[in-house]
Amino acid sequence: MAASMQGIRSGTIALLTDFGTRDIYVGVMKAVLARMAPHARTIDLTHEIPPGDVSRAAFRLWQAAPYFPSDTVFLCVVDPGVGGERRPIALAWGDRVGIGPDNGVFSYLQYASEPDAVIEILPERIGVSQWSDTFHGRDLFAPAAAHVVEGGSVESLGAPITGIKCLPVPRLEFAPSGRVRGELLFPDRFGNWTTSIGFLSPEGNEIRLQPWIAGFPETLLPLAGLKVILPDRPPLILHRTFSEVPAGEPLAYIGSDGLLEIAVNQGSATDILSLHQGLEIEIGE
Amino acid sequence: MAASMQGIRSGTIALLTDFGTRDIYVGVMKAVLARMAPHARTIDLTHEIPPGDVSRAAFRLWQAAPYFPSDTVFLCVVDPGVGGERRPIALAWGDRVGIGPDNGVFSYLQYASEPDAVIEILPERIGVSQWSDTFHGRDLFAPAAAHVVEGGSVESLGAPITGIKCLPVPRLEFAPSGRVRGELLFPDRFGNWTTSIGFLSPEGNEIRLQPWIAGFPETLLPLAGLKVILPDRPPLILHRTFSEVPAGEPLAYIGSDGLLEIAVNQGSATDILSLHQGLEIEIGE
Amino acid sequence: MAASMQGIRSGTIALLTDFGTRDIYVGVMKAVLARMAPHARTIDLTHEIPPGDVSRAAFRLWQAAPYFPSDTVFLCVVDPGVGGERRPIALAWGDRVGIGPDNGVFSYLQYASEPDAVIEILPERIGVSQWSDTFHGRDLFAPAAAHVVEGGSVESLGAPITGIKCLPVPRLEFAPSGRVRGELLFPDRFGNWTTSIGFLSPEGNEIRLQPWIAGFPETLLPLAGLKVILPDRPPLILHRTFSEVPAGEPLAYIGSDGLLEIAVNQGSATDILSLHQGLEIEIGE
Repeated sequence: MAASMQGIRSGTIALLTDFGTRDIYVGVMKAVLARMAPHARTIDLTHEIPPGDVSRAAFRLWQAAPYFPSDTVFLCVVDPGVGGERRPIALAWGDRVGIGPDNGVFSYLQYASEPDAVIEILPERIGVSQWSDTFHGRDLFAPAAAHVVEGGSVESLGAPITGIKCLPVPRLEFAPSGRVRGELLFPDRFGNWTTSIGFLSPEGNEIRLQPWIAGFPETLLPLAGLKVILPDRPPLILHRTFSEVPAGEPLAYIGSDGLLEIAVNQGSATDILSLHQGLEIEIGE
Repeated sequence: MAASMQGIRSGTIALLTDFGTRDIYVGVMKAVLARMAPHARTIDLTHEIPPGDVSRAAFRLWQAAPYFPSDTVFLCVVDPGVGGERRPIALAWGDRVGIGPDNGVFSYLQYASEPDAVIEILPERIGVSQWSDTFHGRDLFAPAAAHVVEGGSVESLGAPITGIKCLPVPRLEFAPSGRVRGELLFPDRFGNWTTSIGFLSPEGNEIRLQPWIAGFPETLLPLAGLKVILPDRPPLILHRTFSEVPAGEPLAYIGSDGLLEIAVNQGSATDILSLHQGLEIEIGE
Repeated sequence: MAASMQGIRSGTIALLTDFGTRDIYVGVMKAVLARMAPHARTIDLTHEIPPGDVSRAAFRLWQAAPYFPSDTVFLCVVDPGVGGERRPIALAWGDRVGIGPDNGVFSYLQYASEPDAVIEILPERIGVSQWSDTFHGRDLFAPAAAHVVEGGSVESLGAPITGIKCLPVPRLEFAPSGRVRGELLFPDRFGNWTTSIGFLSPEGNEIRLQPWIAGFPETLLPLAGLKVILPDRPPLILHRTFSEVPAGEPLAYIGSDGLLEIAVNQGSATDILSLHQGLEIEIGE
């Protein structure tokens, strides 16, 4: 747990919320950070998580985290249960720290590896004596992030706990046919869909399916005849990038996160293929 | 007027506009600030104020201001009358400075307390000799904000004036029934509405209604039987937070700004209660 | 080519993409920049370019560039051909550097003046040995921008090339009537339209039409009786600013970029005048 042993951080705070940008909630959180951690740099992941969509936030956090400085503090406030029973928590993986509600928002990071520290944030430990019941992002989570980015240890935020919430693991299994079966996860702005089938890299005549979800067995699939199968739609061939198919045509490819993705070149796969979250897909011969 | 006496600021500029984020107007204002105040930090409040909605901008500014460093410069460009008669102004409350058009955009801050200084910005005082007729945010207001954040006094921006515009105070009065009567102000992204009834804090068996609008008398209401009444809708009980009612149910609560708010747990009060701006509400027995 | 001769930059990186803000692509690019150029300041131009609309991106870049510090690095990722044949390029105009795909995204800057250097970015020159096929913004362009903002020369990014892509110049010509003929370019959030008729400044009884597109002849039009003519719509008089006409009325004016613009005071010209991209307009008696 290097996070608790060193006092100096590069000072990056990444923000991920469902607050949108029409209101001033994000600006107010940054104002609190500007007062309490004046030298920190904030980077917005997105504030357009659909209201209360904890699962999507957890996935976006997993997608983004590897590209940040290794000691980034991730301030994640998608918090439909604010002011209720759910605990405010801080998690550490090495120097990387996540701060947010105990509602599963760190699930995808947890699928990949267990955190080194899990702490319930206790307001009095960070000098917070009053807080609202509806805006913990401003009153608790931003002060906790400031505390850590200013050099405080994760442990000093509160008390160690166990049994934090983790969302169900997305579908990733072998079908009776021997194919690998997964599901559609989330679309991006362009209508490109990520899937739960991950970390594919070609090796000679085969393609390796690596476990991005801890515990999934190592698997090699033959490249010849490899198809991506969606129910009631023509099978797709694995391509390298969009421009390998004509405009308006669908394709499957290994996305920039190492997950299998489904898209339409210069079009929206959501619309053209009628895709939706949870749709079952298979990959194999 | 500490603003004019000290030369060193923490360097925070808060931006509030109706420019949206589809165009590059905000980026261009930040470019001007990067040139003229290279060490300043900018924080976006929001750029999604509906075009020309000065009243909403004024309210958002009031909501956000307390959480910023006390010497923040608030650059507020919701300016449907740009290039016309309205004056460019700067207001100071202590070290806090507001810069924008004289169209009421500082009204909610004015309701709370009169500014210490009111200055008409004179372009020649800040080295501006040419400006467009349609983008004062770039040509006048950003240079004025840079001037102040770099240590210039508010007074040095121009000449003292009186009689700046202030929007009508929102409804806040006693109904013949003895109840306190207010109105719905603005919804947020989640469909939660702020009201003009403010600063309630429970004290034993009573709840104190404090004047967030200067001049409203101090008032104590009995907590027992306290109801929030909207026309033609069932009365609401005062709750602490969303999760105290089932999903889909409406509630009233004291929002994170100290104003009475109306919401639906995990739903939109705008849709479910058919709320709209200016709707009259009452609170009392 | 001062860019290659000096080693010290003010450290500004401007970002322009079609990534939107719903996803985390922009945040991830900023994460890469935070790691590789920790002292750089990023400024968002916009991320709301319609997907793949290279022409609009090129125009927005032209609009914004003059207001930035003169040594800004413009990181422009509107890249529908990512992973295909198109080359990653860097262009320099003096200290100003553009980095992005060779698909015309720098066209409007090219209309104004030819770049001093045109370089194909070679990944190995900037220490990049692996990259995805679908996210060069993260894997190639952000590292290239970091390389330059940290003091690397544009030339050190790769090899000089010629024949980069440039989009067709917008319509700007003399009509048989002697009027100047142009076209509608792009609307902003408010429904105000820029046109291809540019750089007008009144001089006594005439107005000078200056060539913002290199090669257009210098032209003076008489101000008396000057009209802006759109097909099947009443002619418009040239005004100074919105508030010179009643609310809801259309007007023409010289926009803050020096281009002729068409708008409706406190309304949307898109809706009220049924404007669309490419619509022919004329200005003259």
